[in-house]
Parts: sequence; structure tokens; C-alpha cells
Amino acid sequence: MACASVARHALESGLVVAVSRIQLKPLAASASPSCLKLLTVRRHGIRAMSETPAMSGSPPISGRSVVVKEKEAIPKGSTGAKETISTDPPRGTRDFPPEDMRMRTWLFDNFREVSRLCAFEEVDFPVLESEELYTRKAGEEIVGQLYNFEDKGGRKVTLRPELTPSLARLVLQKGRAQSYPLKWFAIGQCWRYERMTRGRRREHYQWNMDIIGVPGVEAEAELLSAIVMFFTRLGITSKDVGIKVSNRKVLQAVLEKYGIQPDSFAAVCVIVDKLEKLKREEIVSELDKVGVPAEAIEGILQALTLQSFDDLEALLGADSGAVTELKQLFALAEGYGFQDWLHFDASVVRGLAYYTGTVFEGFAKNSQLRAICGGGRYDRLLSTYGGEDTPACGFGFGDAVIVELLKDKKLLPQFPHMVDDIVIALDDSLKVPAAGVAARLRNAGRVVELVIEKGRKMKWVFKQCDALKAKRLILLGTTEWEQGKVSVKDLSVREQTLKTVDELIAVS
Amino acid sequence: MACASVARHALESGLVVAVSRIQLKPLAASASPSCLKLLTVRRHGIRAMSETPAMSGSPPISGRSVVVKEKEAIPKGSTGAKETISTDPPRGTRDFPPEDMRMRTWLFDNFREVSRLCAFEEVDFPVLESEELYTRKAGEEIVGQLYNFEDKGGRKVTLRPELTPSLARLVLQKGRAQSYPLKWFAIGQCWRYERMTRGRRREHYQWNMDIIGVPGVEAEAELLSAIVMFFTRLGITSKDVGIKVSNRKVLQAVLEKYGIQPDSFAAVCVIVDKLEKLKREEIVSELDKVGVPAEAIEGILQALTLQSFDDLEALLGADSGAVTELKQLFALAEGYGFQDWLHFDASVVRGLAYYTGTVFEGFAKNSQLRAICGGGRYDRLLSTYGGEDTPACGFGFGDAVIVELLKDKKLLPQFPHMVDDIVIALDDSLKVPAAGVAARLRNAGRVVELVIEKGRKMKWVFKQCDALKAKRLILLGTTEWEQGKVSVKDLSVREQTLKTVDELIAVS
Repeated sequence: MACASVARHALESGLVVAVSRIQLKPLAASASPSCLKLLTVRRHGIRAMSETPAMSGSPPISGRSVVVKEKEAIPKGSTGAKETISTDPPRGTRDFPPEDMRMRTWLFDNFREVSRLCAFEEVDFPVLESEELYTRKAGEEIVGQLYNFEDKGGRKVTLRPELTPSLARLVLQKGRAQSYPLKWFAIGQCWRYERMTRGRRREHYQWNMDIIGVPGVEAEAELLSAIVMFFTRLGITSKDVGIKVSNRKVLQAVLEKYGIQPDSFAAVCVIVDKLEKLKREEIVSELDKVGVPAEAIEGILQALTLQSFDDLEALLGADSGAVTELKQLFALAEGYGFQDWLHFDASVVRGLAYYTGTVFEGFAKNSQLRAICGGGRYDRLLSTYGGEDTPACGFGFGDAVIVELLKDKKLLPQFPHMVDDIVIALDDSLKVPAAGVAARLRNAGRVVELVIEKGRKMKWVFKQCDALKAKRLILLGTTEWEQGKVSVKDLSVREQTLKTVDELIAVS
Repeated sequence: MACASVARHALESGLVVAVSRIQLKPLAASASPSCLKLLTVRRHGIRAMSETPAMSGSPPISGRSVVVKEKEAIPKGSTGAKETISTDPPRGTRDFPPEDMRMRTWLFDNFREVSRLCAFEEVDFPVLESEELYTRKAGEEIVGQLYNFEDKGGRKVTLRPELTPSLARLVLQKGRAQSYPLKWFAIGQCWRYERMTRGRRREHYQWNMDIIGVPGVEAEAELLSAIVMFFTRLGITSKDVGIKVSNRKVLQAVLEKYGIQPDSFAAVCVIVDKLEKLKREEIVSELDKVGVPAEAIEGILQALTLQSFDDLEALLGADSGAVTELKQLFALAEGYGFQDWLHFDASVVRGLAYYTGTVFEGFAKNSQLRAICGGGRYDRLLSTYGGEDTPACGFGFGDAVIVELLKDKKLLPQFPHMVDDIVIALDDSLKVPAAGVAARLRNAGRVVELVIEKGRKMKWVFKQCDALKAKRLILLGTTEWEQGKVSVKDLSVREQTLKTVDELIAVS
């Protein structure tokens, strides 16, 4: 389940990508056809870091614009040679070079493993969806910033801003064929479009876990336990991170108290979610605009300050649904053993219109970082799409803030590229048998770097062994190969022996 | 490396998604506010299967349009309740419900494992790219069918039709910081836009492996060995699948023989790639349009029929670059041990403009299936973007045709959803300790389905144990729990015992 403010925070922590293009002078007609003249290649350190790079263990890469070589052998018309091309990804988006990809894979593997242990099933949806899935009118930031367009068939489509609506759509599509509860998870890229004035990113990945078909807070407890399991696997403790929990029924009860129409409920929630971001006057003015009377505004803002069950009971009465659900949830947390992580805090409302019950958000303690994850119960979403009323809850967990937290806490591991064996033919005539040695080792399950380029010096080879943390270096020399053997250097003990290929495989 | 025809074939084998929408009559103003009236829910079997569903082990899902309930408690304005919404994904795209996702994960895991064993590093790029990366003018189908649009900032962007240009862009961006060769792989979704007249899909996933910086055919051999390793892991043999190999230098030499300008080279390649699809007259007419004289057309078509090195040598001479490279590549294949899979076939040209040397394509023998994968050498692509001339080669391997082949050969495994333990509280008062038992088992690495919904009968529980192939059923009953014990049913031997939670964990 996506959460507007998780999305917002994830995107805020991104890069400003400022692309400058070099204007190229027309090529001299007299340029020699045979020579490849590189006219200009300039580097520009033009990618300003706004905060920290969200998913990158590596230093920022300088944006780079390169100017085309003049190259008569490649006719412009045929391969579409261009005068200049930007080497940056589109504004607000990321490439994942190997070092960043290894970190992403590690993070996603942890998302997947936690979901798997909790017996959730993975699902996925198209990154492109119909705009109508998101056209809610409660003023959510996420809906106001759709990366939408009209396709060539005149359909209004959008790069998805969150995953929950797609999940709801799929649940409806599968219909009665499926038996509830569904416990589904997804890891997908989400998009927003906004003028890049504040260095926000336009895409981020989000882990979602959702339970469809369970009305009780046992479902929320299961979701929260997965989140805590994830943190714990990564070395994060309840001293580092807390999860603020509340229930939208608190706000609902307050609105009812003042006789406010339920129409305004979603809009009020979206407004008061901005409490930390906007000035109090702005919140008051926005609430006024949606027709909330002044005394009710006061009551709402007052209720949002509550942080104990006693105070909540005093306000709503002990038999209030909100109180009962919250207490049950905290009791279950104690059963799971993660009660230390939870904090009741009525100020948590979440910025998505569709939440109806429990809402929660993970936050880093003693830190300026924004919400790490968030979610809640959305029992009415499926019925707004035309399905039956279906109890459901879920959360969204972005790929940005968590990485910043892990860096802050020095909990982010190193992710080197590693191989088991490096295989090299010492003579070009041995490239064919060297390929055979590599193939046999790979088929035996070893990760093998075969040196395929020509003329490598031994100094380079040893450097490569270090860089790739290779366990063995396997050298094919003419004399040894004639005897059916290869030289094997065990790089942990720096010992060199002669072995047949069968022996090589046997050890591995 | 993406290949126009792999993309084409993958997309062709998709679904026709025909969405029908139900028009809803205005709600009666007199409807009771408190009752939730489901006005209409209809199912429509409107998704016609054009060929076979590409990535689906499950029967086709009926498209379904549902009509919104009237539901006064959810004000239309607040959550954007709509009158009708389609539950199908956008035209030509797929959802991945759990059963399809498990197959996709299995396929991708195999892509990843092969790439890893070959010491390739995973990379990724944005699914949205600048249109300028693809605006080549050789008439490729892939470029003519971009899923492109103008973003709100006036930038021309497109959902990527293939991965190679993004890879080239990233290589240029990283610049001299990296040491060649780069051995990179990626698994990404690619898009096309075409009028849905022939039931083609608009997206597919593609596995790419690329080697940057190696001029010799050792690089192509390494790529082909990975493809064969992949097939072999899945149980496919060289009796099922072959790989046709040729070299664009064959065609280049023929063009030179007739004194044809190199400008036309890419366009000629793109045209003759359609040889199996179009009539001979159409090919002749297209070649005529790009200025190839009649006698040259005859010579080109003649050269494309060659299937032996002897005939090739007879045409081009023994010292031709094409002959040398092809022979070297086949010798290396013998070293790796996959020579049985390769077939020299000059008719293979591939439909992408940027190939310059070796080209190849995997095909199912005795089958109507289209190309399974394809690739080749593209030594000039980076320089058309403004970088230096950089030797490079790669392949693209789609997610559609391979699955059809595996089905045909009955090699597609079953992918059931499986758990280790099912935990259930026999009394609602034991839900809290049951959560604790589940948490401890999960922390010990077991996949645990915790029954969180209320009132499940034992009959249902046992059915669930079968469905999820559970190893143990763990029951919390009041009497046993008071003694600190739970009932454990070992489902392989149908034996029930009493155990403490510590004992439960110890066995696991």
C-alpha cells in the first residue's frame, strides 16, 4: 500500500539532474573520411546533490554530455547519428550501475525474504495504468502529481504513482475465484511528475504488503510484524526506529461529534496529514475551505495531539471503536514481541484518501529523516471501484529513506563484485581450451571470470584477482596444457599447483 | 541487446485485451442512505486469446467490468468513487497474479543465475527514456512503434522499446572511470505501441547480456555459451533449439562488390531481415527504393541463401573478414562444447540497424515458434551517441517465446505456493500467543502461514494444509497452552505430538 508521504519523502531525497547540452558547430566538409576525429568531449559536474543520493552507495556520477565524432563510415542517415546526446537518464530518474544495482538487489532480497517467511505471495502489475484508477478528489498530493499522458489511442494513462489501486483492480478482476484472505506483496517502481524545483526524484521503488479479506486488526499486526522483522534483519533496533500508530476512526468520531458530513472525511484527513509541513494557519484555512466550522477545527487539532490511550478514552469513551482496535493491536504486538516499536500517536493520519481505520508510519528516532514506511486499513477502496466492500490493509515501504538511515547508522554492508575463479590462457592459442575449462567450472556451479580480451599482463591479472576477491586463479600455459594440466593458484594461501581439469572441478 | 524481431515476436504472442464498459444508469435519488446496494456486477469473458498467453501458467482470466455500488457512507467527492471502472490492465499489458509471478520469478532467477556464473554484473535503467536515444532512420519496426509522448515539461520521452541504447548511454556516462571489458546484464520491461489489430502485446520482459570493450569473437562466444547454459538448465537440448549465426560483414562485402554506398547498409539489413515475413517482390521493391540496383539485389538475395563456410569462401574469398570471424567463433564454440547448437546461416541478419558484425538468433527446431532470442555485435553504437568507437556485443532474450517452447516440450515445472508451518489458535483468546509462536518460527527461517481470520473450521484448515503443501500444522489449544505446549501434526507422517515452543524451533 503506497502512502503519499512515503512517496513524497522518497522522491524528495533524490537528485537534481541538470542537463546541459553542448552546441556543436557544423562539421568541416573537408574532414578526412578515414580518420575518426573526436571533436569535443567535455565533462560537466552538473548534477547537484540536493540531499543525499537515495539508492547509491557510490559517489555521484558527473553528468556528461558528449559530442559526436565525425565518422564518415557511419552515415548519419542510417544509424541516426546525432549531433549531441545527453548521457543522463531522464530528469529525476536513476540508472543503476553495478554497484548501485547490487545494493538494490540486497534490499529487494530482504523485502522478498521477509514476505516469503510470512507466507505472502508476490504479484506485479503494469507500471502504466489507466488514469481513472487514481482520480480521487480529496486533494492528495500523489494524485495531483500524476506522470500521466494520453496514449496514441486517446486513452488517459499514467505511470503509476502507487501500487495499491492496481492491487485492488487485480483483486476485483480475479473475483470469486480466489479464497480470502489474500496475502500479497509487490516490489514496484512508482512515478510522480512535478516541476523539478526542489530536487525531488520522479521515481522510486516501493515494497508493498497487503492483506485482503481480514476485518480484524490481526491483519495490521501481521503487517507490522513483517516491517519489524525487516528492520531487525538489517540490524536496526527499536532504539533507532519507531512506528507511530493511530486510527482514522479517532478523527471520524471527532467529526461526528461536531456533526460534520462524512463527505469531508477524506479531505480532512489529507489536510491534517500536512500538519508537520504547513503552518497551523494554513491547515486552519484549508479545513475552513472544505467547510469545517471553527470550533470543530479546534477540536480536530486538539484530538491530534493525543498520545495516550487514557486521554483517548477520556475524549471518545471506552467503548469507542478506535480505542478498542488500537488496544487490540497493541496486545497482538506484545504477542509477536514487537511492542517496543509501537507508539500511539493521534497525529498520524497519512496522506492517502482511502484509509478507513488503523494508520501507521515508521520513523527514524533522533533524526531529520522523513517517514520510512507507512500504511493502514482501506476497507472501502474496492467498493469505490465497483466491487463489494472488502476489508483490506497494507503498507508501502520506499527504497530511499531506509538506505539513508542505514548509512547514518553505518549498517549498510559493502557489496563487492566477487567471483570464484579467474581463468586465463597464457597464450592466445589456448583460448579455445580455456573456454572449455571455464564452461566446465560454471556448469559445476562456480562463478568464473574468463579473461577473453587479448594481451593481458600478469600484473593486471593479479590486480583483477584482488578486485574480484577471486578464490583461485587458473592459468593455461602451453607446456602444462600439453600434459593435460593447468596451473592453479589458491589465492587464500598463495599456493600454486598443477591440476587436471577433473581435479579442478572435484575441489570446487 | 534487444532485437527488433525478438521484441516483435514476444509481443505478437500476447493477448488481445478487449475492454467493454458498462454504462451505468444514474442512481436513484431515493436510495436508502444506510444500505449498500450492489447495483450490478457482471462478468464478461471478453479477453480473447490470440495465440497463447505469453507468461502464464494459468488459464486466461476473464476480463471483468464491475459497476459501482451505491454507497452513501463513501461520499463520491472524497474518494473519487467512479461509476464504472475496468478491472483489466491497460490494453496489451499484463498483471502478474501469484501463479504467473512464481513462473516469472523462476524464469528470471535462471536468467540471473546464468549471468552470475558467467561473472556478469546486473545493471538497470529507467523504463522511461529520452526519445532521442532511439531515433534511428533505417526503418526499423522497433523505432516506428515507440510508446512515446511529450512530458509536461515538453520533453520527448518514451517507454523504452529495448535495453541496449540505455546501456550504451550508461557506458558513456560512466566514461573513463571504468575499466573494460564491462560484462553487464539486465532484465527489464520493454514497450511498443501499435494499433491492437493483431492481438499483439505492448510490453514484454527481456534478458540482456552485453560485453563492452572486446573486439574479438571471444565475446560473442561467451554470450552464446551463456544462452546455451540457460537452455541446458531448463532441460532444453540442441535437438530442440538451434542458434543460427551469421555476420553482417557478409552483406557488407556483397554491397561493396556492387559499389553500393555504405549509407544504405543499415537500411538494407533492416529490409532483408523481413525475408521470411514479406514476399520476395516486396523485398525487391523496398531495396529498389533505397537505391540498390537490380543486379545487386539479385546478388544480395543469393548471398543470403548460403549455409556453408565453403560456399561463403567461394563467394567472398578465404581472407574475408566475415569468413575468419565466423570460423573463429565456431572453433571457440567447440572449446566451450556447444558447437552442436550452432548453424551458419547467411539469411540471419537481424532487424536492428546498429549491428556491425556477428549476428545470431535462437530458434525452436520443428516448430512454428518465432525467434527465442537474438543478438550480435554493435561496434558503432556508442560512437553514434558521441562516444569513442567501442567494440560491443550483446543479446536480447524475451520472456514469451521461451515459455511457449517449455510448454510445448512439457518442460515447464509446477510452481505451487508452499509453506513450512501453518499456525492456528483454536480459541480466539489464544490469538496473541499464536502470533508469538509464528514470529519465533519465522525468525528461525521457517515459512509460516498464521491463520488470522476468525472462526476457521478444522476441515478448512486441513484443506489449507494440502493446498499449501505444509509440513506441519501447529495448533494452540487452551488446555495444552496452559501447560506451555502446542499440538504439532507432522503432515508427512500424519503424526500428532505435544511440544513446547522451544522444541518446535529446535526441530525446524
